[in-house]
Amino acid sequence: MPQFKRLPAETLEKLKLVSTATASGMLLKIGIRNTFMEGVYPLCPDKVMVGQAFTLRYLPRREDIEEERGSRPRPQRLAIEGVGPGDVLVVDARGEMGCAVAGDILLTRVKVRGAAGFVTDGTLRDTPYIRTMDYPVYVRGANGQPSTRDFTDIGVNEPVACGGVAVLPGDVILGDGEGVVVIPLKHAQKIADEGWERERLEVFIREQVEKGASTLDAYPPNEEYMRRYQEWVKAQK
Amino acid sequence: MPQFKRLPAETLEKLKLVSTATASGMLLKIGIRNTFMEGVYPLCPDKVMVGQAFTLRYLPRREDIEEERGSRPRPQRLAIEGVGPGDVLVVDARGEMGCAVAGDILLTRVKVRGAAGFVTDGTLRDTPYIRTMDYPVYVRGANGQPSTRDFTDIGVNEPVACGGVAVLPGDVILGDGEGVVVIPLKHAQKIADEGWERERLEVFIREQVEKGASTLDAYPPNEEYMRRYQEWVKAQK
Amino acid sequence: MPQFKRLPAETLEKLKLVSTATASGMLLKIGIRNTFMEGVYPLCPDKVMVGQAFTLRYLPRREDIEEERGSRPRPQRLAIEGVGPGDVLVVDARGEMGCAVAGDILLTRVKVRGAAGFVTDGTLRDTPYIRTMDYPVYVRGANGQPSTRDFTDIGVNEPVACGGVAVLPGDVILGDGEGVVVIPLKHAQKIADEGWERERLEVFIREQVEKGASTLDAYPPNEEYMRRYQEWVKAQK
Amino acid sequence: MPQFKRLPAETLEKLKLVSTATASGMLLKIGIRNTFMEGVYPLCPDKVMVGQAFTLRYLPRREDIEEERGSRPRPQRLAIEGVGPGDVLVVDARGEMGCAVAGDILLTRVKVRGAAGFVTDGTLRDTPYIRTMDYPVYVRGANGQPSTRDFTDIGVNEPVACGGVAVLPGDVILGDGEGVVVIPLKHAQKIADEGWERERLEVFIREQVEKGASTLDAYPPNEEYMRRYQEWVKAQK
Amino acid sequence: MPQFKRLPAETLEKLKLVSTATASGMLLKIGIRNTFMEGVYPLCPDKVMVGQAFTLRYLPRREDIEEERGSRPRPQRLAIEGVGPGDVLVVDARGEMGCAVAGDILLTRVKVRGAAGFVTDGTLRDTPYIRTMDYPVYVRGANGQPSTRDFTDIGVNEPVACGGVAVLPGDVILGDGEGVVVIPLKHAQKIADEGWERERLEVFIREQVEKGASTLDAYPPNEEYMRRYQEWVKAQK
Amino acid sequence: MPQFKRLPAETLEKLKLVSTATASGMLLKIGIRNTFMEGVYPLCPDKVMVGQAFTLRYLPRREDIEEERGSRPRPQRLAIEGVGPGDVLVVDARGEMGCAVAGDILLTRVKVRGAAGFVTDGTLRDTPYIRTMDYPVYVRGANGQPSTRDFTDIGVNEPVACGGVAVLPGDVILGDGEGVVVIPLKHAQKIADEGWERERLEVFIREQVEKGASTLDAYPPNEEYMRRYQEWVKAQK
Repeated sequence: MPQFKRLPAETLEKLKLVSTATASGMLLKIGIRNTFMEGVYPLCPDKVMVGQAFTLRYLPRREDIEEERGSRPRPQRLAIEGVGPGDVLVVDARGEMGCAVAGDILLTRVKVRGAAGFVTDGTLRDTPYIRTMDYPVYVRGANGQPSTRDFTDIGVNEPVACGGVAVLPGDVILGDGEGVVVIPLKHAQKIADEGWERERLEVFIREQVEKGASTLDAYPPNEEYMRRYQEWVKAQK
Repeated sequence: MPQFKRLPAETLEKLKLVSTATASGMLLKIGIRNTFMEGVYPLCPDKVMVGQAFTLRYLPRREDIEEERGSRPRPQRLAIEGVGPGDVLVVDARGEMGCAVAGDILLTRVKVRGAAGFVTDGTLRDTPYIRTMDYPVYVRGANGQPSTRDFTDIGVNEPVACGGVAVLPGDVILGDGEGVVVIPLKHAQKIADEGWERERLEVFIREQVEKGASTLDAYPPNEEYMRRYQEWVKAQK
Repeated sequence: MPQFKRLPAETLEKLKLVSTATASGMLLKIGIRNTFMEGVYPLCPDKVMVGQAFTLRYLPRREDIEEERGSRPRPQRLAIEGVGPGDVLVVDARGEMGCAVAGDILLTRVKVRGAAGFVTDGTLRDTPYIRTMDYPVYVRGANGQPSTRDFTDIGVNEPVACGGVAVLPGDVILGDGEGVVVIPLKHAQKIADEGWERERLEVFIREQVEKGASTLDAYPPNEEYMRRYQEWVKAQK
Repeated sequence: MPQFKRLPAETLEKLKLVSTATASGMLLKIGIRNTFMEGVYPLCPDKVMVGQAFTLRYLPRREDIEEERGSRPRPQRLAIEGVGPGDVLVVDARGEMGCAVAGDILLTRVKVRGAAGFVTDGTLRDTPYIRTMDYPVYVRGANGQPSTRDFTDIGVNEPVACGGVAVLPGDVILGDGEGVVVIPLKHAQKIADEGWERERLEVFIREQVEKGASTLDAYPPNEEYMRRYQEWVKAQK
Repeated sequence: MPQFKRLPAETLEKLKLVSTATASGMLLKIGIRNTFMEGVYPLCPDKVMVGQAFTLRYLPRREDIEEERGSRPRPQRLAIEGVGPGDVLVVDARGEMGCAVAGDILLTRVKVRGAAGFVTDGTLRDTPYIRTMDYPVYVRGANGQPSTRDFTDIGVNEPVACGGVAVLPGDVILGDGEGVVVIPLKHAQKIADEGWERERLEVFIREQVEKGASTLDAYPPNEEYMRRYQEWVKAQK
Repeated sequence: MPQFKRLPAETLEKLKLVSTATASGMLLKIGIRNTFMEGVYPLCPDKVMVGQAFTLRYLPRREDIEEERGSRPRPQRLAIEGVGPGDVLVVDARGEMGCAVAGDILLTRVKVRGAAGFVTDGTLRDTPYIRTMDYPVYVRGANGQPSTRDFTDIGVNEPVACGGVAVLPGDVILGDGEGVVVIPLKHAQKIADEGWERERLEVFIREQVEKGASTLDAYPPNEEYMRRYQEWVKAQK
């Protein structure tokens, strides 16, 4: 359903090897300052999440909008029943934590539909169960109260914000044990192609530091360390 | 430009006689809980503002979106050059106060175009001048830094939130020295018709209390005070 | 000591089968909007807690009150030495986190006296030990500084607030891995009687969704799914 | 109605000559650290307020408590109809600003009953009118929404907190253009007796500094400046 | 005392004609993102302030440091007795508002010594008097409690932060009715030279907009409006 | 490099037996009120950390300072390459969480250099790796964005604040599963000497309470319990 360009599966696979720290560091160098969602943490910190943003936008509740919905399916359900493989469902809760945006049944549906993960800057309910789902889910907290208490869901696949970062439908959403980074679609291929190289260099540098190298020489690497790095890379092949 | 039902000028005029306190109290009785913008105050507290919402939505800045705009006019300008008589420009800044959403020149344009006022849950710059404009303007603060520092304007006349209240294009925005209330369009006629009556009753009760009436009898008025109120109303005609 | 109606042990037992999410959802339907404590999380997330509120209220410290206490036992100790089986000690810290409300020795006493658990919207000290106590304890954080730094304990078994929720002595306090819900005493029997049924229905729905059911059909369940649910219930007996 | 010791009118009169800055400075020296309400400001900054605390305590709203009130007058009304000359009505809103604690009619009643002023760490509604009342009123903000939206009034003349300061019924509440200080009852006479002297000394020092004295000599005054102060005092008589 | 380069008086004079909004806008274009102090407002909004930063740094109070000071004058006094003409005293309170950083006597001394103004991201006491001083003073609030309650003054003319902006001794501090901007010393001459021109252009544009010009043509000015601007400038001479 | 008095290794060893709760409680009795860092938690909660503060101070980023650094090593690197055995690196981030203060490579260097641990009131990046380092690290959160986004490092071994507590170079920094306490250098020997005794007494009391003692008798211990404690101590030898 969402109208954005699909990245090749290969690109998404390569992004799984890039940490959120590396990706946001690379984006800052490109000139994209605001990419890491603040305050959003994983319920399953061992999972890696890569997919393209399928967005759902909430507003503060307005009882008159709710009354007039009639029998049309609401945006929340269009989103839950619309996401699929390659998507990450991003729910803009405007940081409000007074009630949940969804619970275990809806999260189960998102997982069954094959989506790559779920992110909100609000809260979820039924989090004890959701923690057992072995599925990448990112939140700002837990709250047992249902979404109808404070929210009106207003639209799907619009530009939104989440955790203080703008998210366009189709942006790549990358999550790991540290949190969630938004990679603008136009920069995703570059991060995929160069990010893994950057990760490898950082592993090399960390190893040198573990062996006693000074960060003044090795981080960033001076000529000598770059030479050693290239040898190390060759030796690993 | 905005696609909402226009209220008769007479309705808007009647709403000028209703305070934000009375309007939000009546809406709470109707079942609309969340109507008064939190933290939003007037730069010109002696003005009354009534108009229908023309909305502008900001997101946290994304440099790649800015780069790709090309020569199309941006949403901020579509809004500034789109508002007109009977409109209140409502700018959703997601409560972010790190830079302004607009300044004196844009506010002057809004006023010259005949709009009924301006509201944001962010800040304005050039507020010393704007305070002299004798125009209803509501903000959460002042910040000299321009909007391009932190914001990307993303759309006009979408549903937004402002000060923690959902705002649909066309909703009636009522402002006075206390702050700003959002009146859902479908309830505006009722507030216009009954609000003034409610104001008159409250003035009567306050007068009785000033003369020594107990609030246990007069607020809400018991039978005796309701009788006196009806006499008082007749006497005023 | 507390002067409230005791619920039958059987009722409390039944409530152990109800999640905080389900309880707060049911209370919202009844019309009680504000039941889930914000920001309060379990130190032992695997424990379930059910008991009736025994309250202790703190104020910001006033040195003159402390000086004049003389030898009378202070409210903190009246609470610690007053709670017993079936009680949950609820400590209103007004959300202040600059020092702890209690530590390992007092928590041990609460446990030894047979109380069902402990909740505060402030912090505890000695939390590394308390986490090993295998006892349901809920806090907003940890702080090593003693309660006498910032607090004056002012009363026991008064109405209080905790985590933004009003708590009357005798209310049922339900805690699980998600957090804490306050069930008004008059509604506790209903939640006990119907909550477990609600839990069972949600497990059924979740199973259907795991098998591929659409939430548009199964959540809430349409006629067909309700029929299947009733069969499923029979089959389980 | 409140059960506290009344200070002589003369004491209250003397306190009118003491600023909140001086009073809180003296209390800190006595060892009372926490006396100035944070975030609470005057609606009528030119008024001075001195009276003894008559307290009203709010909790987050609980619909079941509201339902069961029956015909008994609620605590809010007991407070409004209970305050009198020499009292300041102190309303503990727990800092919540989502709706008002009272409006113009109730404030008018408080004034008509002869109370010395009104303080809350929440908000009021109808503030444009209240600002014209020429009456000492202190708040954390304005909000048009009525108190029934979020609050349940729970008790009168209990110990409360307001603006982060503990307040016992009978404490002296002193307000000026800067804000509000709570003077514990047992220390009020001392502040009344010595505060004015302290004010006079500070005026003298400020005059010396205006004439070019270094603060290293004059603030606090060295022997020479103390001598001059005593002469200055004599000369003024 | 401070060891920074003094700007010519003429430069400081020219900066008085530049608004904080214009200065921070120009700095953003130069690439200095973070220049406007958040939450800091004027006690005397009609004054303009220009001077070079003389800094004072506070830390959270440490009683052991206070005890060991002996008879050496403390940093607060070194600052108060050290500032002079051309200086603005900038007090880094780390945004803490639990007590004041200074009061009327110290502010009087700062004024008498000829300093150009005073800024803090904390609070002052005796603000009712300070508001009458006809002197540029900027704060985040008022609090009657003395600085010794929560602060230890730790150093003068060190790099500090104030209102979320880094301040080096010698930076130009510009204040008006909107707030305070920090101009890095190396960029001050440029802002002085070009800022007034920018102000004049904005006045011209605002006049055109008042007469009906569209912001799409006039802001920024297209060729035609730039031509008219140059004529307008000539005509004014 | 840091210019402070080194404590004997034996003193630091003894401090490893003292919990942060006990240390901050003892310091409060001595009259040091503000010792426990608020909001700072361990990434490796099973480690104990004791060392003397080596400080690094960040300010909000200023691009002009960064430009002018030239080839001199920046304070961040002086700190990372300066810490050694017996030091804890304390990074004052002013509580800002918009980007990290450091990542896995720098933390690895700190560990390799033999420092006793790392504390910041900001965030780290690469926290999934850092959690595996088996090293005492304390933060307020995780953020993948690099320090250059928002910070300018300004100085080493200056007095700083961290988590709301003043820290002088050389202060003892004690961390455990609860958080971090700052022990002023002059009081460290006393805490080392008496803290363990206090811990032993608390263990005894907790055992008595576990066996059924009332806290009214045993906490603090009355004469009888003190007698039993002394026997218990003897028996353990």
